[in-house]
Order: sequence, then C-alpha cells, then structure tokens
Amino acid sequence: MTKSAGFSCLSCVFDYETSKTLVIPSKGIGCVFRFAQLLVLLYVVGYVCVMQKAYQERDPVISSVTTKVKGFAYTNTSYMEPRFWDVADYVIPPQGENSFFVLTNVIMTPKQIQSRCPELPSPSTSCVDDCDCFEGHNDPRGSGIQTGLCVNYSATVQTCEVLSWCPLEQDTMVPEPALLNAAADFTVLIKNSITYPKFKVNRRNILPHINSSYLKKCEFNPSTDPDCPIFRLKNIASEAGEDFQDMAVKGGILGIFIDWSCDLDWGAHRCFPKYSFRRLDNKNPVNNVAPGYNFRFAKYYQTPDGQESRTLIKAYGIRFDIIVFGTGGKFGIVPTIINLGAALTILALIPAVCDWILLTCMSKRDLYKKNKVTHLNEADSEPVSMGTTYGTQ
Amino acid sequence: MTKSAGFSCLSCVFDYETSKTLVIPSKGIGCVFRFAQLLVLLYVVGYVCVMQKAYQERDPVISSVTTKVKGFAYTNTSYMEPRFWDVADYVIPPQGENSFFVLTNVIMTPKQIQSRCPELPSPSTSCVDDCDCFEGHNDPRGSGIQTGLCVNYSATVQTCEVLSWCPLEQDTMVPEPALLNAAADFTVLIKNSITYPKFKVNRRNILPHINSSYLKKCEFNPSTDPDCPIFRLKNIASEAGEDFQDMAVKGGILGIFIDWSCDLDWGAHRCFPKYSFRRLDNKNPVNNVAPGYNFRFAKYYQTPDGQESRTLIKAYGIRFDIIVFGTGGKFGIVPTIINLGAALTILALIPAVCDWILLTCMSKRDLYKKNKVTHLNEADSEPVSMGTTYGTQ
Amino acid sequence: MTKSAGFSCLSCVFDYETSKTLVIPSKGIGCVFRFAQLLVLLYVVGYVCVMQKAYQERDPVISSVTTKVKGFAYTNTSYMEPRFWDVADYVIPPQGENSFFVLTNVIMTPKQIQSRCPELPSPSTSCVDDCDCFEGHNDPRGSGIQTGLCVNYSATVQTCEVLSWCPLEQDTMVPEPALLNAAADFTVLIKNSITYPKFKVNRRNILPHINSSYLKKCEFNPSTDPDCPIFRLKNIASEAGEDFQDMAVKGGILGIFIDWSCDLDWGAHRCFPKYSFRRLDNKNPVNNVAPGYNFRFAKYYQTPDGQESRTLIKAYGIRFDIIVFGTGGKFGIVPTIINLGAALTILALIPAVCDWILLTCMSKRDLYKKNKVTHLNEADSEPVSMGTTYGTQ
Repeated sequence: MTKSAGFSCLSCVFDYETSKTLVIPSKGIGCVFRFAQLLVLLYVVGYVCVMQKAYQERDPVISSVTTKVKGFAYTNTSYMEPRFWDVADYVIPPQGENSFFVLTNVIMTPKQIQSRCPELPSPSTSCVDDCDCFEGHNDPRGSGIQTGLCVNYSATVQTCEVLSWCPLEQDTMVPEPALLNAAADFTVLIKNSITYPKFKVNRRNILPHINSSYLKKCEFNPSTDPDCPIFRLKNIASEAGEDFQDMAVKGGILGIFIDWSCDLDWGAHRCFPKYSFRRLDNKNPVNNVAPGYNFRFAKYYQTPDGQESRTLIKAYGIRFDIIVFGTGGKFGIVPTIINLGAALTILALIPAVCDWILLTCMSKRDLYKKNKVTHLNEADSEPVSMGTTYGTQ
Repeated sequence: MTKSAGFSCLSCVFDYETSKTLVIPSKGIGCVFRFAQLLVLLYVVGYVCVMQKAYQERDPVISSVTTKVKGFAYTNTSYMEPRFWDVADYVIPPQGENSFFVLTNVIMTPKQIQSRCPELPSPSTSCVDDCDCFEGHNDPRGSGIQTGLCVNYSATVQTCEVLSWCPLEQDTMVPEPALLNAAADFTVLIKNSITYPKFKVNRRNILPHINSSYLKKCEFNPSTDPDCPIFRLKNIASEAGEDFQDMAVKGGILGIFIDWSCDLDWGAHRCFPKYSFRRLDNKNPVNNVAPGYNFRFAKYYQTPDGQESRTLIKAYGIRFDIIVFGTGGKFGIVPTIINLGAALTILALIPAVCDWILLTCMSKRDLYKKNKVTHLNEADSEPVSMGTTYGTQ
Repeated sequence: MTKSAGFSCLSCVFDYETSKTLVIPSKGIGCVFRFAQLLVLLYVVGYVCVMQKAYQERDPVISSVTTKVKGFAYTNTSYMEPRFWDVADYVIPPQGENSFFVLTNVIMTPKQIQSRCPELPSPSTSCVDDCDCFEGHNDPRGSGIQTGLCVNYSATVQTCEVLSWCPLEQDTMVPEPALLNAAADFTVLIKNSITYPKFKVNRRNILPHINSSYLKKCEFNPSTDPDCPIFRLKNIASEAGEDFQDMAVKGGILGIFIDWSCDLDWGAHRCFPKYSFRRLDNKNPVNNVAPGYNFRFAKYYQTPDGQESRTLIKAYGIRFDIIVFGTGGKFGIVPTIINLGAALTILALIPAVCDWILLTCMSKRDLYKKNKVTHLNEADSEPVSMGTTYGTQ
C-alpha cells in the first residue's frame, strides 16, 4: 500500500500539466497579437542588443598616465629680463599624475626677505598716524602682520607697516599678452595604460600597430592622425573651443578626456581610445571668484651671510587634466538572462492585453467569452458558461 | 493545393490562441489574489520607483578640482627664529590635483652638508671603540653609512661615525603646541567641475545663482551657507569631529567628500553638491605605525665656494583630500523594462500560489479540482475529470 | 439596481479566475519538464547566487592613500662625486597622492646659467660658417634659440651658437648600472583608507588585528605576510615579473594594485585588501617612444653677485602607481527581485517548449491536441476539437 502510494506520488511528479487553450480564428486579434510580438522582438534585438549592448557585463576602466612636455621659448619683454625657458622652468611640478601645468604668465617678486615694509595702498591700509594701525593685527586681505606704525609708502601716501616677506608682491597688473605666449607651440606626449581588471584586459594608448618612427614625428589631429599621442598645446585649446593666447594671460584648466568605452566581445585589439577636449574652469565672470588659474610658489636662496631670501612667483598657466573614463563591456550570462527575462515577460503580457481586447471590444465577444471562460456555480456544483447557456456542455 | 496549404499555414499564424479559464466565485481566494497583487504594485511604485529610482540609468561622476588656500601667520617660539609664513611657505607642493597639504608643524635642520658626524645615541649606535663600528654598514634604523670609527657624540657618550647629511636631524621632540596653530584660521576655496559623460551634463560647485560679491565674503556653513565653496580649515576639522589644534601637532589627513548623486530627470540645474567631512588616517595608536602625517623635503643652497648645503624640513601637517563621488541617474528604457519585467513576473507568480492554495487548502478543493484540471486517460483516449465523475462531460 | 450593479462589479473583482489545465500522464514529457526546471534552478542557485552574487547591490570603492619611503644609499661612481642620498633627495615630489617616484639614475648638469654656447653636434646643428645658422631659429630638436653665429664646439667641430641654459645637458650616455641601484632595498609603507559610501563602510589596509610591534618589523610577502603594508621595492618589481636593476637604468612605472572587492553581507570586518603588481609602461621598443620613465627638474641657486644659476637634473626612476579598485557588494532587494524575476521567466518558458514538443514530436500528439486545444468555429458558433471529432463534446 505504502509502495503504491509512493509510486502514485512519483507518478504525479512526472505527470505533465498543461493549460487548455482555445484557438480563435479571428484575423483582427491575431494580427494585433503578432504585431505586438514583433514590436517586442524588435526592441530586444534592435535597442537592447545592438544599441545598448545590455547583454554585456561592464567594468570601469583603471588608468595610469604619464606626460612629457617638449619645447622652449625665449622671452624679452618690459616686465622681465630677457630669459630662456625650458621644460624644467615652466612645467611645475616637474611630474604630476593625471595632470600637468604649463606656465604661461608670471609675476616675479625677487629678493624678498623677512622684514618690515609699508602695506600696498588701499582704503583699509592707508593711515594718517600710528593710531590707525594696530600692532599684531592680521587682516586677511592685507599682506602681513601690522607692526602698529604708520610709515611713508611714497612721497604722498602713508600706509601701515607690516611684518612680511618684503618687498611685497604687486599683482594688480598681469602682463598682457602673456609672457610665454610661445607655449602654444609646445607639444606633449601622453602615455596612458589602462586595465579592465574583471576581464583581465590591458591596453595602451600607443597602439601596437604604430611604430617608433611614426611616433617620433607625428602630431595628433582628430581627422588625419587620431591615434598619435603627441598633442600641440594650441590645438588642444582650439579643439576645446578656446583661444590659447587668451587663456594664457590669466590661466585656466583644459580637460583632455580619453574615452575607453570598449566592446570587448570583438577582442581587446579593437579597443581604441577616443580623445576629446573641453575647458573645465569657468570663464564667465558673473558667478565666479578668482577667475583663471594661478598659484604662488617660491624659490629659496641663502645669501652669503646666511640670511634666507626668496623669489616669490605667482604662476599663471594652463593646467591640463587628463581624465580617463569609460567602461569595458563583455558578454555576460547574468545580464543576458535578465534582459531576456524582461523581454519575455513583456511578451507574456501581450496575451493578457489581447484577451482584454477580445472580451470587451470585439463584436463576437459573447461567443468568445462563452467558449473561453467557464463560470463555476458553487450552488449546484456545475460549471456554467457565461452569457447565454448553450445546449449540452 | 500548395497555395491552399500556404494559405492554411498563414491562417494558422494569425489565429489567436488563448487559454481557457475558470472563474471561481470564492471571496477568500479572490481577496488573497488581489491583496498579493496590491503588495507587488506597492513594492514597484514605492520601493523600486520612488526610493531606489531603479528605472534610471546610472553614470559615475568625472571630476576636476582646484584649490586655493589663503591666510598668513607669524610664529615666534623657542623652537625657531621669528618667522612670517604665507601660502608659498606652507602649502607644499604649491598645487596638487585632488588634495592640498597645509604645514602646521615643522622640524628644521639647517645647514646640512655631506660630511661625517657621530650618530644620534641609541642602543644600536653607541660604541666603546672602533671595533663596535663597521665600515660601510648601512643600518636602516640609523642615519647614514658607518665609517668604522667610534667618536665622541658628547662629553660622555661615544657613537659610531656616519657618512651623511650632517648635522643629523633630531626629530624626537615635536614642538607642542604646533608651530603654525594659526593655520586653523586659514581658508580654502575649492572649485570643482564635474561631468556625467553619458548624459552630457556638466556642473560646477559654484552654482549659477551665486554671484561674485557673495563669493568674496562667504564662508561654508552646513546650515546657513551650504553652497559657499570657501572653507575655514578649523571648521573642516570640527565638522569631521576632530580638534584642529590636536591634529596640527603630528599631522593627519582630513577627507572633504563632495557627493554629486543627482536625479537628472528633473534637469541638471537641480543637481547640487553635498559636502561632508571625515578624518581618514588612524588616530588609534594600538594598530598603527607612524601615526599622524609628515614627510621630509629639503631646500638646497650653494655656498659661495660651490659646496651644496641644504635645509632639511620634516613637515608635519594636515593633508586635505578632496574626494568627489556619486552617480547621476536618468530615466532609461532598459532598466525600466527590466524592473517592470521583474515585477510582472512576481505578479505572474501569484496565480500559481493561489492555485496551490485553491487545490490543497480550500474546503471545496475537490469541486475546484474537478472543474479546473482534466486528467487525460490515455487508455480509452477520453479525458476524465479528477475526483468523482459527473454526468455528461 | 445601481447598488446591485455595484455589488456585481465588486463581486467580479474578487472572483478568482484561473486557467483550466490538462494533466497528461506521459513520463517522457514529464521528465523533460522537470529536468529543465532543475537546470534553471541550478543556474539560479549555483551561478547567479553563489558565483556571481547577482543578488547584491554594488558600490565602487573610494580611496585615500599615503606613502612613506625609507632607506638611504651612498654612491661613489665615475659619473658623479661621492654622495649620500636620503628620502629628501630621491623621493620627488616629496609627497604624492596615489603615486610616489624613487630616483634610481640621474644625469646632472650643474652650474647652468642663461648664456650662449655652441649646440651639441648633430647633422642639423653642425655648420661651416654663420650662413648655416639663423638668428632666432627655434628648432624643437635643438637645445635653444640660435643666435646666428657658427662657433667652435671642439677643435674639429663647429656648431651653431644658441641662447640657452649653458653648459648644455648631454644625456646620450645613461649611467649603467644605475647610480642608485641600492634603491632596491628601500622599503615603502603604504596606508590606504577606503569607503563604500552607499553602505557606510570604512576600512583601512592596516587591519584592526595587526599590532604596532608587528608593523614595525614586518615586510610584505604574498604567502607569509600578505597583510603587512610595508613593501621592499625590489620585491614589488620581482612580483611584477621585472628585474629592479634593469628597470632602474632607464626608469619605468610599476603598478601596485589594491583590490578591495568585498562581500559585505558577512560584515565589514571580513573585507580585506588583496595586493598585486604589474609593470604599466611599455618595455617593448618596437612601438614605443621615449621608453622608460624620466623627467627633468632644476635646483635654482643665486650666485653672490645675484646671478641665477641652476643644476639641471634629468631624473630616471621608478614611479609606483598605487591603484585602488574594487566594488563592495551587499544584499539588495531590487537586484534580487530582478534576478528572481528573470529566472522565473525562464522557468515560465519551459511549458511553452514542452507544449511544442507535446504537439509536434510525440506519437500521441493528435490525442493531446484534441484534448488541449479547442478550435472555435465561428460559423456555427460551436467549438470543435481539432483533429478527428469525438462523440459528445
């Protein structure tokens, strides 16, 4: 008996249960049904697979960048002594990670020493006598710590004396045109090595099919030389829609975007970088403060008698930020199943919609309803079709 | 004939096949069914759409940061000569990418030259005679290459002589309180430009509705001025739950987190940065080594006779790391379909569960089963209802 | 009447509609059906849940890194005066963000001043008389601005005179073996603090169970000390499959990859970093330009009479890029529902396939078709079974 029950249960597990169906030879609803199916299929094949490549797993790019600027210039202006500039002079700091800075304009204040000197004239620093100055006062908009004395700045102007690096920097007049206008013709070699760790793919922006002799003389051009990793600075600016000479005066930030979005299903060897350029700082003066880009640094010297002096340099220039982004995509089972599942569910939704149309909008809806839907009458325990009753059922 | 078959097949394609259904007027199972549907609907609308915004495509933020520190200080302590400090002195290096370092404490060792001098006294460097010292020995915990001589360090102590930059640095005593305590009142202007490349959206942390005059005098405050990009250093520390004066002694790392998580469906103009602050280094001395943050660098000088000397600086200070993160989200067809599909599948699961309840738990289960399920009897090729047989079927 | 209609409609909402089904006691199709279900179940449990952890939400890691190099060396070669090197001499810049550079080889050009000197001999710079040189000519491959004069470079060679920092650098001969070979034995302490902002999890690479005394003497070893954050430079190179001494001559870039991929469902305390190492620059000379890694910088001095001189340093060395990556994963309702939904949809696909097998491949297909599918004959408004007609239906 037990054995029989067990067998019966096992038999039950391997019985196949399928739903009973009704075929309705209505061309109208049939066309709607097939057309809807076609639409979903087109969405899956066209949009999901071809355009969005949603069947792919994604991995963000991991990147390492090195840069090497080349070029030199000779400046001979009224602002400074004649001077020759090479890479060690105008690239500050000498090596960066994902950015490099090229000095284009400069305000130098040489031979500063720790001492006392009169403040630069301004409404808050001018004084009549010592009572206007407060010893130890530290005005954030000033240049140093007030000593409490009111001294002659010039024959006609008196200002408070400050403890500071003297002489004070005068940065109201920025040389124009920019001192190192010639920087426009400098070139930069950008080497970029990337990894998609999930797919164990490594690539470089110097592509394997490029040889050394080409690299020695090529120059990037979006249409003729899109693979050359050597960029002329003025071309970067013009690609970004800016004028290098304008930017050079007060400085700015240019973004060099390297897009490594890749379809790795076709093999890593078909994964190429795409370069684009955009100005990153705000040149609109309305909602801005400290426009352009500059920073101060100093070169320190020791006089023979051991006193420290420095040359303060307010460096205006263009910072080039190399921004590497993108994701690699490769066929993955999980996203494929997910998108397939979603599409199938939408397919499965179609009969529900068609049934609704069938039972509410079609002229023969009563006929369809009678044959499709059985209404269980619990009272007499007999199923009855909906609508009019039909002879033997 | 062929034409007829072709027509028949075409007709077959456009026939509409729908499942036969049985309506059971049971309020119990009906309520369970509708309630389960309602729950799934609430999950989809409430959690998936409103809370998780799972219908959106996402793109990680790409960022470029510039910083500008302002402030100066005058120090007059027993550790050092009186000195005036400005930005060029205490921000090292003068420009960084996503971080800036503000010097707060310093151990200076001026006038070092390449020569020979006795090691600093310690159990491993003290000696009695030359036999205790080994020429060329390079002890990683020492300060230089031993010459093999044992010389007087002081009147009472003898140590091995080393080849090194002499005089040696003595860094056991860190000035306390920190030399540049005044750095607490310095301010920093942070400019941050971001991009969501997939959505072609660019934003800046200086919002378009902020004007220059406000920017010139504002200061960040999480409740009153959450949009001002100028931060007072001591406020950054206190927002991170730290005391600036404490951190200043041995240095540390403070993270300035800028969260650009944005719902771009409402337009890019409603995408704002949110600032938060946290200490990043470990102040717990138990599982730590080299607590705080410091690094050594040197200023090199040349004496008039051409010999190189340097001032070694062990710089303690606070490194501020500006960490920009977040994802932009915008309505996308693929994620919408996927989430809709998943929800519909869960909806489609409900009838299966209800059927199971219907056929096993309900009192009238035999009646339901008889009407719902037909058992095919292969022997006589006639279907029979399950349970008791009922008249004509 | 209205009340009755309203009640009827409400009753209609809570009526339960279920599909009529047919049970077919065919072991063949039953086995196929159950086996297919089992396969889908195995995929969901085994691949989706256990291997891919697709039920998890993901958050990319946010990281902050500090490094501290230790070690010193004494060099005594024919290329340079004997010299002692410590951290302040060979780590340039003294502090970086996610990378540090260790100088291993150097070409120094001391006592450069702004003046005029003959070009280095090369086919493009050699001249016979002044007519071969052009005043103001700026040859990118040269070393300065030509003055238009042809002068003696040596007793036998004449080259164009240039305005430049003189004497010119001669970098054709790179010292070999590398000057700072001893850098192989330097060590670096890497501190890495990470955050998963979505899950509010913070971790450090110095794990909580590690104590200070261990940290003071440990050294990273992938098999014996995988948690020690102190790395010997030559070991980094050998783990990356490179020879440190080879790399030291012309420089290069080594990536230190820290993988923070974590399953946070088990708690943040089980989230550990995994280190790996790889050379990032291209050592293949075929499709390369400027192999190795070097940059130029200068130390500026002032002679007692106020003239500026500099020591130009072409620094070859190894840049170590610390690349932190990985995602944290934690159980999330949305991805769980999505994967469950996708799996259920695939499950729902099985009956469709089985039905197709049933109605086309099985020997009793006509019997099955007759019982399963009812064909609506619109003409006489009576449903007829497909295939042969059977008595009363």
